[in-house]
Amino acid sequence: MKAEIICVGTELLLGNIVNANAQFLSQRLADLGIDVYYHSVVGDNAERLKEVTKIALDRSELIIYTGGLGPTNDDLTKEVISNILGLEMKLDNISLERIKKCFKKYDKNMTENNIKQAILPKDCIVLKNDIGTAPGVFLTYNEKKIVLLPGPPKEMHAMFNNYVVPLIKQKYIIKSKTIKTIDIGESQLEDLIKDLIENQTNPTIATYAKEGQVDIRITGKGQYEEEIDKSINKIVEKIDKVLKDYIYSYDNETIEEVFYNLLKEKNMKVAFCESCTGGLVSSRFTKIPGTSLVFDRGIVTYSNNAKINELYVKKETLNLYSAVSSETAIEMANGLLSKSGVDIAFSTTGIAGPSGGTKNTPIGTVFIGIATKHESFSIECHFDGDRESIQYKAASKVFNEGRKYLLKINH
Amino acid sequence: MKAEIICVGTELLLGNIVNANAQFLSQRLADLGIDVYYHSVVGDNAERLKEVTKIALDRSELIIYTGGLGPTNDDLTKEVISNILGLEMKLDNISLERIKKCFKKYDKNMTENNIKQAILPKDCIVLKNDIGTAPGVFLTYNEKKIVLLPGPPKEMHAMFNNYVVPLIKQKYIIKSKTIKTIDIGESQLEDLIKDLIENQTNPTIATYAKEGQVDIRITGKGQYEEEIDKSINKIVEKIDKVLKDYIYSYDNETIEEVFYNLLKEKNMKVAFCESCTGGLVSSRFTKIPGTSLVFDRGIVTYSNNAKINELYVKKETLNLYSAVSSETAIEMANGLLSKSGVDIAFSTTGIAGPSGGTKNTPIGTVFIGIATKHESFSIECHFDGDRESIQYKAASKVFNEGRKYLLKINH
Repeated sequence: MKAEIICVGTELLLGNIVNANAQFLSQRLADLGIDVYYHSVVGDNAERLKEVTKIALDRSELIIYTGGLGPTNDDLTKEVISNILGLEMKLDNISLERIKKCFKKYDKNMTENNIKQAILPKDCIVLKNDIGTAPGVFLTYNEKKIVLLPGPPKEMHAMFNNYVVPLIKQKYIIKSKTIKTIDIGESQLEDLIKDLIENQTNPTIATYAKEGQVDIRITGKGQYEEEIDKSINKIVEKIDKVLKDYIYSYDNETIEEVFYNLLKEKNMKVAFCESCTGGLVSSRFTKIPGTSLVFDRGIVTYSNNAKINELYVKKETLNLYSAVSSETAIEMANGLLSKSGVDIAFSTTGIAGPSGGTKNTPIGTVFIGIATKHESFSIECHFDGDRESIQYKAASKVFNEGRKYLLKINH
Repeated sequence: MKAEIICVGTELLLGNIVNANAQFLSQRLADLGIDVYYHSVVGDNAERLKEVTKIALDRSELIIYTGGLGPTNDDLTKEVISNILGLEMKLDNISLERIKKCFKKYDKNMTENNIKQAILPKDCIVLKNDIGTAPGVFLTYNEKKIVLLPGPPKEMHAMFNNYVVPLIKQKYIIKSKTIKTIDIGESQLEDLIKDLIENQTNPTIATYAKEGQVDIRITGKGQYEEEIDKSINKIVEKIDKVLKDYIYSYDNETIEEVFYNLLKEKNMKVAFCESCTGGLVSSRFTKIPGTSLVFDRGIVTYSNNAKINELYVKKETLNLYSAVSSETAIEMANGLLSKSGVDIAFSTTGIAGPSGGTKNTPIGTVFIGIATKHESFSIECHFDGDRESIQYKAASKVFNEGRKYLLKINH
């Protein structure tokens, strides 16, 4: 099936946002074994949207639109497509009721123009929006499949995964597995599994680098699930041999989720204290629902005063070794451990930049402290990138060092 | 001038990378006052690239390609375009010498296929590559301008800025201004400035909604900078009249930056304590470089125990009113104020979901506490969306309430 993705929105043509929707849909369609041949982007303009649609109808069998389903006059995807295909539009009462409920739930006034969102091509399959107001649309026309999805990524993702996938699935099965690695660069990783990458056919192997981590995605196609699993597992075994030390998940989890699951399994409580990461460790950790089971508290001690008062770091230590030092990191973690009574406490202190670097502690230097009732120690790290990137990598490192520590201990 | 951007590369269609090149070129062209009407993405396939090119020649006056100028067989942009336009290709000796020097500089072996990069359409303007090997190409054909740029972003950016801009510059100037609003939805906002939006010509007005906030972008074109500023300011004044309460920046700052600048201006210190936002307030705030000037500490009190020990919240308050209540929010903020000695302290406590909602405090309920030495009070909020979205909006609300409070007081 030849597919084309059409993203509608002047904000894309102005460069206000990057086209993440096209990337998401491309990845998901690749997983489903559907070949994407074109992306097109067009503004909120009826005439040009019409032209782009005509071209797509001519060359593609599956056409997926994102954007232009909102309540304003600018939003005209549904209207233009219905016009081209000669479809009447009518009010869908089920969608209208759902939209009304949405507004009621959040105690917001529904304006007249929101009714427009429930006016849909007659006889289409309505795609429910589980997150926002605008419903999506699924149509077949001359054996072509046409899908209209909302532009906001969260709404689009949920609608695609829940309601579009079953409608466009192929007869053969596609399965994929994502192995997640940390602490190794993409080119070094690719070098280590060069043979596998060069000789790939089915399953295929692709690597994706993100902010200090590299994902490896293995995708198999076939008629029987068991066979695909077998061939994928063979590749996984080979990758495991070479990259074991760097792999933290075989199930597409985040590093914080892996750490959270280990804590839960071992029935341990954790606390974080942060200087250079400024709350990012706690914030990323508490994005996981249910963290209250294992997370007691987090303390962001930005000033030296806060380090002394909150974490009992000694003034002498700060004076002698400075705030960015192994000694301070360890005292921070120990202070937090004793005051919170958790099983394991972590600290971060470092230089995230853009200024503040010195010869001995250049920008990117971060000390991570770990304390339990049995021991306490610190790890010195050096990260590259800008302030945000250094903070992000340092937080990931906390979770990864936590993961490694919990795997090692037996209590 | 109607422009189209064509990005060539199968990796885009597979979703391996996001199309950041299209965003970069769109932004730069918008700055130059050139209207981008279409983005197209096509794989490394001669036939489909030919088709896409024919469509573009039909509808656009400036066509900018990225990608497909590399040394491998897959790279065929130059070849396909030359073929369509009936242009001979020949070796460009200046480019060849430059490429040879590149390889020498990095002490790498130049392989046979690298010579291909120096074979260019006859009589084109060669665009020098200051960073990598592949030269770019500038052609005029039937009064249309055609530009071929390399795919690697750094090479493409430098080539565009240094050599393409002078070739496509317009005679008029473009300026734009972004107004940022919070606490109002996009449709309600558009309703309030409906007249302005419906009657826009030059300057133009566009709105962009993001996670609880709406940006308004006003863009003016003209010959004289002063005139454009004047016409933009007229629109700003009109918007200001209707939306003043919702506007937090006229300079494209984030809500946390605006709050940070106010604290700095007033020479005040701040501290945050968080329950449901789990460290996101501190984390977003400390992404701003230099926050140590105004930020003392942050405390994430997830357990009741932590609220009692760290923030001196009374057990009785937690029992009587529960952790998610105005009373607890105020005690948290007061506790933090007294222990940290800052000028203003904020707290958050609420239900971010996905579970834990009750009839009285449904998911999305958040209390924000504010304490100074003069007073303490709380604000009850209700946010929609998933866990991450509720946490994000609650954190933004803290910064916005902080901003409003600092604007009101006179100390």
